[in-house]
Amino acid sequence: MSAQPFRIGLLGHGTVGGAFETLLAERAGQIEAITGLRPQISGVLTRSRGDFAEILDGCDLVVELIGGLDPARDYVLRAMRAGRHVVTANKQLLSHHGEELWAAAREHGVQLRFEASVAGVVPVIRVLQESLAAAHVDRIHGIVNGTTNYILSEMARTGCSYGDALADAQRLGYAEADPSEDVNGRDAAAKMAILARLAFDTPVHIDQVTYEGIEQITADDMEYAQELGLGLKLIGTAERIDGSLAVRVHPAFLYEGHPLASVHGPFNAITVESEAITEITMSGPGAGGPQTASAVLGDVVSAMIPPASTPETTQALKIVDDVQSAFYLHMEVEDRPGVLAEVASILGDAGASIKSVVQKGLGERARLVMVVHPLLESRFFAAVERIAVLDFLRSPPRAIRVIEEHFS
Amino acid sequence: MSAQPFRIGLLGHGTVGGAFETLLAERAGQIEAITGLRPQISGVLTRSRGDFAEILDGCDLVVELIGGLDPARDYVLRAMRAGRHVVTANKQLLSHHGEELWAAAREHGVQLRFEASVAGVVPVIRVLQESLAAAHVDRIHGIVNGTTNYILSEMARTGCSYGDALADAQRLGYAEADPSEDVNGRDAAAKMAILARLAFDTPVHIDQVTYEGIEQITADDMEYAQELGLGLKLIGTAERIDGSLAVRVHPAFLYEGHPLASVHGPFNAITVESEAITEITMSGPGAGGPQTASAVLGDVVSAMIPPASTPETTQALKIVDDVQSAFYLHMEVEDRPGVLAEVASILGDAGASIKSVVQKGLGERARLVMVVHPLLESRFFAAVERIAVLDFLRSPPRAIRVIEEHFS
Repeated sequence: MSAQPFRIGLLGHGTVGGAFETLLAERAGQIEAITGLRPQISGVLTRSRGDFAEILDGCDLVVELIGGLDPARDYVLRAMRAGRHVVTANKQLLSHHGEELWAAAREHGVQLRFEASVAGVVPVIRVLQESLAAAHVDRIHGIVNGTTNYILSEMARTGCSYGDALADAQRLGYAEADPSEDVNGRDAAAKMAILARLAFDTPVHIDQVTYEGIEQITADDMEYAQELGLGLKLIGTAERIDGSLAVRVHPAFLYEGHPLASVHGPFNAITVESEAITEITMSGPGAGGPQTASAVLGDVVSAMIPPASTPETTQALKIVDDVQSAFYLHMEVEDRPGVLAEVASILGDAGASIKSVVQKGLGERARLVMVVHPLLESRFFAAVERIAVLDFLRSPPRAIRVIEEHFS
Repeated sequence: MSAQPFRIGLLGHGTVGGAFETLLAERAGQIEAITGLRPQISGVLTRSRGDFAEILDGCDLVVELIGGLDPARDYVLRAMRAGRHVVTANKQLLSHHGEELWAAAREHGVQLRFEASVAGVVPVIRVLQESLAAAHVDRIHGIVNGTTNYILSEMARTGCSYGDALADAQRLGYAEADPSEDVNGRDAAAKMAILARLAFDTPVHIDQVTYEGIEQITADDMEYAQELGLGLKLIGTAERIDGSLAVRVHPAFLYEGHPLASVHGPFNAITVESEAITEITMSGPGAGGPQTASAVLGDVVSAMIPPASTPETTQALKIVDDVQSAFYLHMEVEDRPGVLAEVASILGDAGASIKSVVQKGLGERARLVMVVHPLLESRFFAAVERIAVLDFLRSPPRAIRVIEEHFS
């Protein structure tokens, strides 16, 4: 007997809508295992096809990905009035009409979820609404626009002009053909209005957010900044100041030690500060079809299951302990000819390729330190055992794993 | 008419238990505003006082903070069988008896929440259970033990020995009198067993986690590492390898660009990787009474409210836009005597204190770039308006905010 279906009405079928449909199909089996319900798209509304009333009638939940204020507002309100949960990625809608929509959700006893509206897959909405529901937040700040972060990262990295970096971002799909709302700070302002509402439990409309963009930034500013030990980011901030609330978006220089200074390219990152928690920082890709679709899917699954479920395990992966690793290898040896050759030959036999070597003389002894590229740990340790019994070793060799990958 | 009480039975009253009681009292008003229920501690069990059966009988939810396997396991099972939700911070218990406990929670239709068991206030449990419930996770790795991260950070910063850094950590309260489970990697192994269970949906017992600690690390290793551009961390990893699962804890060198390389002191950080989401990194304090208590409180509030609630606003903070900021100020000026003095004098009148100045001659013109310490923005902009009309200015001055604070 097959599981009962859970029908999803999808409004909008652009990049995110298409990625959501693909991801849902891929993960449907796992979702059925977790929830006992089989998710399926029961209707799709685009400019050229579908009828909203019909889609609403035939679904259990509405995913709104058409963006903008109208007709999105009307559709979301009608869906909630009809008792449907709604998942949306629409920051404009929530930063303009949030109070009206949340009131409707409370009134009709449905869930209105919107993780994808801020910082893509970075789970800041859920953390503010759930983990920190009762926290006394002092400040929330971060990088909530990936387009501008990419542009600023490129300007810093290459010394190019704002215009060149923007053109580059457009070519790579990190900026839209009309990038105004990103580069003038308004996109980030909408997101900060939503975050401030949740963190400070005060109604915040986008028109109450002061914002400034990055269009005025020059290559020359970036150069001085580097000289002064500063990096430039477009920063959104919402903070308590003497019992009031200030919500702003503006370019800002950060000293190199700041945790947001190392967030590069199209990534987003948000720090929440509160006396009791000190601070939590969350980061990840701020946009992109599959990433935003993942955030939407997380909300859909949450609407399907009761909270904090730890379902029975559906997998039974074999647990192994021999894996590939790169290694640092530290040896105290006699300082005599042929030592390096012998060690290198044993490592070579094991299939270990040497990445770097530092050798230092210390009178009669020498320290030989190597980094080797990844190989199966069992093979590496077998080689180390062979090295350990060589007569020129003065103490047992020490091996420590090296994690090689770099992130941008 | 006062709200209905929500009664919490508290098992254990050490550092975290005490901090939880304090935090709950502080936040009770806000929790009542959100949930409509008035939370209160209805009973406390310690070695010297309280009776478990009586506490259970008189509560709606049990918070288990006694730690260890026995009698914690018995108490948690009895509480769930009696229909009580349970919130626990007990990593030992979950890494040994997780499947039994989660099965009991499902059977009795209660919530078993355990955010505080891994990485303190970093919301990794909730994100794995909810945001990523349906995600196909490829790898999860991170720094999940604050004691060892503090010790390694100190060794790197000061060049001191492992023993000295450990003694320092003990003096500051970052390491216990008996630090064995922290420094030998077993504490991190328990946490990785829990994370792997949630991320890969496969039963994982602590005995299936390979682990190694940091007791063998020498000052000499740290020195070579810095020479090779590497930083040392105790890293927990759970990853899919050819359809199997490997879960390990070991010291590892990271290249400087790695996002975990910049996590210092007693902080924890966890990265979850999946093709669709790319990666999410979450960081924050991994331990500490108020921080762990905050994670416990987040779970308690979640057990009290329906999911994804956005309650009516309970605050109405005034939204202001004039705040204190530090500034970078960029001016193109004629290269003649007295220019710096005049600019400095206007800034001084406004109460702006100059932190750094870079002046560069460019033939007849010069560029004058300053960073000033924080002052009220309206005062700073008034000063810039006065500067803008000085006859030696060659183009409008440019001001960009500087975020000054450093985090450790």
